[in-house]
Amino acid sequence: VNVYAVIMAGGAGTRFWPASREKRPKQLLGLLPDAGGSPLQPRGAGESLLAATVRRLAPIAPAERVYVATGAHLAEAIAAALPEVPRAQILAEPVPRNTAPGIGWAVATVARRDPEALVAVVPSDHFVANEDEFLAAVRKALEGTRARRITTIGIAPTRAEPGYGYIELGRELSPGLHDVARFVEKPDRARAEAYVSGGKHLWNAGMFFFRARDMREAITRFLPDLAAGLDRLDEAAARGEEAEALAREFPRMPAISIDHGVMEKAPDIAVVRAADFGWSDVGSWQSAWELAEKDAEGNALPSGAVAVDARGNLVRDLREGPAARKVFALVGVSDLVVVDTGDALLVIPRERAQDVREVTRILRERGDYTLL
Amino acid sequence: VNVYAVIMAGGAGTRFWPASREKRPKQLLGLLPDAGGSPLQPRGAGESLLAATVRRLAPIAPAERVYVATGAHLAEAIAAALPEVPRAQILAEPVPRNTAPGIGWAVATVARRDPEALVAVVPSDHFVANEDEFLAAVRKALEGTRARRITTIGIAPTRAEPGYGYIELGRELSPGLHDVARFVEKPDRARAEAYVSGGKHLWNAGMFFFRARDMREAITRFLPDLAAGLDRLDEAAARGEEAEALAREFPRMPAISIDHGVMEKAPDIAVVRAADFGWSDVGSWQSAWELAEKDAEGNALPSGAVAVDARGNLVRDLREGPAARKVFALVGVSDLVVVDTGDALLVIPRERAQDVREVTRILRERGDYTLL
Repeated sequence: VNVYAVIMAGGAGTRFWPASREKRPKQLLGLLPDAGGSPLQPRGAGESLLAATVRRLAPIAPAERVYVATGAHLAEAIAAALPEVPRAQILAEPVPRNTAPGIGWAVATVARRDPEALVAVVPSDHFVANEDEFLAAVRKALEGTRARRITTIGIAPTRAEPGYGYIELGRELSPGLHDVARFVEKPDRARAEAYVSGGKHLWNAGMFFFRARDMREAITRFLPDLAAGLDRLDEAAARGEEAEALAREFPRMPAISIDHGVMEKAPDIAVVRAADFGWSDVGSWQSAWELAEKDAEGNALPSGAVAVDARGNLVRDLREGPAARKVFALVGVSDLVVVDTGDALLVIPRERAQDVREVTRILRERGDYTLL
Repeated sequence: VNVYAVIMAGGAGTRFWPASREKRPKQLLGLLPDAGGSPLQPRGAGESLLAATVRRLAPIAPAERVYVATGAHLAEAIAAALPEVPRAQILAEPVPRNTAPGIGWAVATVARRDPEALVAVVPSDHFVANEDEFLAAVRKALEGTRARRITTIGIAPTRAEPGYGYIELGRELSPGLHDVARFVEKPDRARAEAYVSGGKHLWNAGMFFFRARDMREAITRFLPDLAAGLDRLDEAAARGEEAEALAREFPRMPAISIDHGVMEKAPDIAVVRAADFGWSDVGSWQSAWELAEKDAEGNALPSGAVAVDARGNLVRDLREGPAARKVFALVGVSDLVVVDTGDALLVIPRERAQDVREVTRILRERGDYTLL
C-alpha cells in the first residue's frame, strides 16, 4: 500500500509581515542573508518550511507521491520551490474555500491514481526538530488507518496555549494510539492551563491520516454537497475536462474546514499520542525567536550587529538580492522584534508579535497593497 | 566697523550616529527624505545646521566676512555646503588642537585683513528658533566689545542640565549686559536644579564676541605659546608662506579650549542675558525628537509610517540617494529612536540617546571604520 502526502500550503501568513506577503507566505520563506540562519527555518539556510515538510516526509511519501493543496495565486511560486514534485500535483484551488474542498479534491485526485491509497495530510508551515520521532508518529498514525479510522497526531502540551486546538484522549486502542473523545477548539486560559497538567489533552497538530476511500466516505456522509461536487469532478476528469469542471464546481463547494466538516463529526477518529518531536507551528515572530539561535543575552542578531545593554531581541535582515552591508545597532532595548525587508521595517515587542496583523489591516484599509 | 563671523565647525558629532559620520558630522546634516523635515533642521529640508548658522548671521556678517574653522578632513565638504563663502576663508586645521589654536588662527587671519575687525565666534551645529531675538542678542554682545570686553551670550536655563557649562552673572553693566562672575562647567544635578530657579546662572551657549586685537592680546597674556605660534604664522603669511608655516606650527600649538585658555582667566568677560531665542545645542537624538514635528501621539515618523499603540517615538528614514519607498511600522513601542541610514539601523530609547556613542566606540574597537 502506497502512502501519498497532501501538503496544505494555502496559508497567508500575515503574522510574519513584513517577511511574509500575500504572494510569499510563511511556508515559502527560505534563504535569508544572515549568519544566524533563517528565523523560520533553523535547519539550513535556503530551505523553506514547505521544502522541509516535503523532505521530512520523503521516507514515507517520496516526491512523486506528493500533492500540494494551495491557492491559484501561489501555485507558480510553490512549483518553483518544489521542483521535484510533478507540476500536475500542485493543486491550485481557483478560489479559497477553507480546507475541506481542497482536501476533498486532493483525495479524489489521489484515489483516481491509486484506489488503495493511504493519505497523509500535513501543514506546510510547521517546524519539526526531531524528524525521526516525527516519522515514528506518522508510521503509528498510518497503522491507525488499517482499522479504517481517520487518525490524527496529538502532541503533549508543554505550555498553556489558548490559541490552539486540543484533542481529548479516549480509550487506548493500542500502545500510543487512542480514540478521540472530543476536539476542543481554543479553550480559555484556565482550561488550557489545566490541560497542561491533566495529561488527557493533546495539541492538535493539524495532521490527518486515512485511506483515501475512507475519507471520501466520510465526506459523503457529513458533507454531501462537497461529495456531489467531487463526483462531478471525477466524471469530468474521466472525460479529460477537469480544469473546466474545477473552475465551475470549486466556487460552489461548501467553505468549511475539514475539522468542523468531518473530524468533529466522524465517530471513530483515532489519535497518536506522539513522543515530543520538537514541534512548533511557527505561529509568530515570538516562535521565530524561540527557534532561533541566540547569544548569551538571548539576542538573535544578524552578523555584525552591535548590542549594548540589549537582551532577548530578534533582529532579522531580510533585505532581498545582493543587499549592501548593514549594521544593526541595539542599545538599551529588550524583547523586541526588528525586521528589515528593505521596503518595510517592523519594530514590535515579542509579546505583542501577534499584533503585526494590525499593520497589515491598516495597510489594507489604506488601499496600500504593494506591501501586502 | 565690520563684523566677521568665525564659525566653529570642527565637531565630530558621534551622538547622531548613524546619521552623523566622521566625514559628515552633525553640522553638515541636511536634506532628508521624509515629509516631516530633517530631524536636525526643522526650518527647511536641505538646509544644514551649518548653512542655517551662516544665513542667520548674514544681516551682521555677510558671507564675504564669514570664516569657518574646521578640520582638514571636513574642509571640502564644508566648502561644498557653503558655496557663498570664499574658499580661502574655510580654515582647515591640519590636526585637531581643541578650540584655542583654531580661534587664534582665525582671529589672526581676520586681523590681517581688517585690523579693526569685530569677531563673532559661534558654533556651527546649534539650533535657533527665533532668529530676530538671536540677532538682538548678538548686537547687544557686540556692544559689549566696545568696552574692550570679550563678551559671551548666556541663556536662561529652562531645565536642569548637568552636561552644560554655566555662567554666573556679576553686576549689570548696562541693561541686559553683565559682568561674568565665573564660569561653572558641568555642575552636579542638585546645583543644576538650583541654577534653574536661582536666576543667577545662564547656560553658556559657546558664542564669543570681541575685537580681534583684544582677543590677540588676551592670547598673548594667557596663552603665550599660542601667541608665539600665531606671530610666526603672521610673519610667514607676510612672505606668502602661510600654508607651510601652518603645517609646521599648528601641531605645536597648545591643545586647549578657548574657555579654559582665555575665557576663564580673563578678568573682564561680559555676558548678555539673552531673551529666550529658542536655542538648542541639538545634543542628541533626544533633542532631535524635541525639535521635530510630532503627531498627536508624540511620534515623529516618516511619511507612510504605521503606528499602532506607539507613542513618543522618533523614526528617521535617512537612506541616501533615490531610495525606494519603505514603510516603517511601530507596534506597541514607546519613546524609542529608530534611525535607518541604509547601511545602519539604530534602535535606542530616547532617554538613552547619549549612549549611541557606545556603538561608535565598539565599531572603532572592532576596527570597523566604514560606518564611523
